[in-house]
Amino acid sequence: MKEQDLVAQIRKKQSFLCIGLDVDLEKIPPHLLQKEDPIFSFNKAIIDATHDLAVAYKPNTAFYEAYGLKGWRALEKTINYLNTNHPNIFTIADAKRGDIGNTSTRYAKAFYETMAFDSITVAPYMGKDSVEPFLEFEDKHAILLALTSNHGAYDFQTKQVEGTQLYKEVLKTSTTWKNADRLMYVVGATKAEYLKEIRHIIPNNFLLVPGVGAQGGSLKEVCTYGLNDHVGLLINSSRGILYASNGEDFAEAARTKAEALQQEMKDILSKA
Amino acid sequence: MKEQDLVAQIRKKQSFLCIGLDVDLEKIPPHLLQKEDPIFSFNKAIIDATHDLAVAYKPNTAFYEAYGLKGWRALEKTINYLNTNHPNIFTIADAKRGDIGNTSTRYAKAFYETMAFDSITVAPYMGKDSVEPFLEFEDKHAILLALTSNHGAYDFQTKQVEGTQLYKEVLKTSTTWKNADRLMYVVGATKAEYLKEIRHIIPNNFLLVPGVGAQGGSLKEVCTYGLNDHVGLLINSSRGILYASNGEDFAEAARTKAEALQQEMKDILSKA
Repeated sequence: MKEQDLVAQIRKKQSFLCIGLDVDLEKIPPHLLQKEDPIFSFNKAIIDATHDLAVAYKPNTAFYEAYGLKGWRALEKTINYLNTNHPNIFTIADAKRGDIGNTSTRYAKAFYETMAFDSITVAPYMGKDSVEPFLEFEDKHAILLALTSNHGAYDFQTKQVEGTQLYKEVLKTSTTWKNADRLMYVVGATKAEYLKEIRHIIPNNFLLVPGVGAQGGSLKEVCTYGLNDHVGLLINSSRGILYASNGEDFAEAARTKAEALQQEMKDILSKA
Repeated sequence: MKEQDLVAQIRKKQSFLCIGLDVDLEKIPPHLLQKEDPIFSFNKAIIDATHDLAVAYKPNTAFYEAYGLKGWRALEKTINYLNTNHPNIFTIADAKRGDIGNTSTRYAKAFYETMAFDSITVAPYMGKDSVEPFLEFEDKHAILLALTSNHGAYDFQTKQVEGTQLYKEVLKTSTTWKNADRLMYVVGATKAEYLKEIRHIIPNNFLLVPGVGAQGGSLKEVCTYGLNDHVGLLINSSRGILYASNGEDFAEAARTKAEALQQEMKDILSKA
């Protein structure tokens, strides 16, 4: 998907909500466990109930891999369902991959071609030649980890490296890579105050912001510092939406939670 | 697998060879493409031909994910085949995972439990709480990326951070994490001269060393600086062994290549 088409969807839906499809069989409504494919059944119900409120969906691969083959099959069914029924939705494989060049190319093929995701999250530790293979595909986007929402972000990401902080060095360096205009970045909502400086380094790129809700980040704060003239934000919520209820009404309850976030976003966009 | 059992296998086989099972359908012998599961057929033949010469096998997940469901199935069959037929072999999921705590736990379950690998490679960028979940499992090992074999290693890993280089900061910091005795580290053979200083920081931990052979690293140099009193090295070779021939004799040819490396290792061990 082209970035301009994502922006058009955001304007149309008045939403920059991304829903994280992190399916945990111990948390989904028990009645779904009778289904042939509980993971996909859950995802389908959530997507059906929320697709007019969200512009992106983001399955985290860990939750699927933990269930082995049946998990991987459910992931393939989920991305196929999204691409077939909602081609205007932006899809993110939250996989945090990264390896030496020819191996990163394999991961890119796995997520951009074998499964047709629009984007994949990528870890920066191995540098330029581990990330550039993810930038070689037209209308596909690598979403680079910059400053993550967890406490461990302070172990290395915020350490001083050559006069700046490591995550800023990652941001700056990455802008020099080939097809850097296809880069987006992960910036945790739990560190909203960092967004001001981040926007100085990368004013134009989209930011994928996890950590609103369950992890404690504030949507308003993130928007104050993170919005740019083409919005430039995707705010992710996972558990807060998915597990709003574990009864028969789970999809409806998820919709209510998504709608509350979308309304907040609509307000913010109207004032911006 | 306990580390002491790995060391015992190394002593017994006089080998610290790890074979990287990076299966590329465009490189394997064409006659295997007729088989029902070419990827697994190839792996099985390689394992059957080399298991007395190698102490570890390391499938890189990228190569399997690129083929979607059938790739994931072949990966599961490969680890099951190894565990059933060669329980004394150390197995490594070269997956380079890492995410926020509860998500890393999912990855740990995927690779330690759903598939019963002995170890998984892990990226350090997200810090302590992204790595510790991989250290919670008895007799399982997280192999942390420290200094990788690719050129991109110079982008961030060797940058000065608070008076030292980032990869050394990763080494030092990680030794303070819970169950740090279960940590091993990836150090590229293309940077053998760095091993001396690395051994000062982590004298006891095993190092997984890729980059010998196709990527240009020297086995002798790695051993000069990397060996410790319980060997402490696993040297990986992938392409150099797997694709020694693409005829009917591919497994035999792979064995010849593996044997040459094992002989070199035997010589080195006898002199150490």
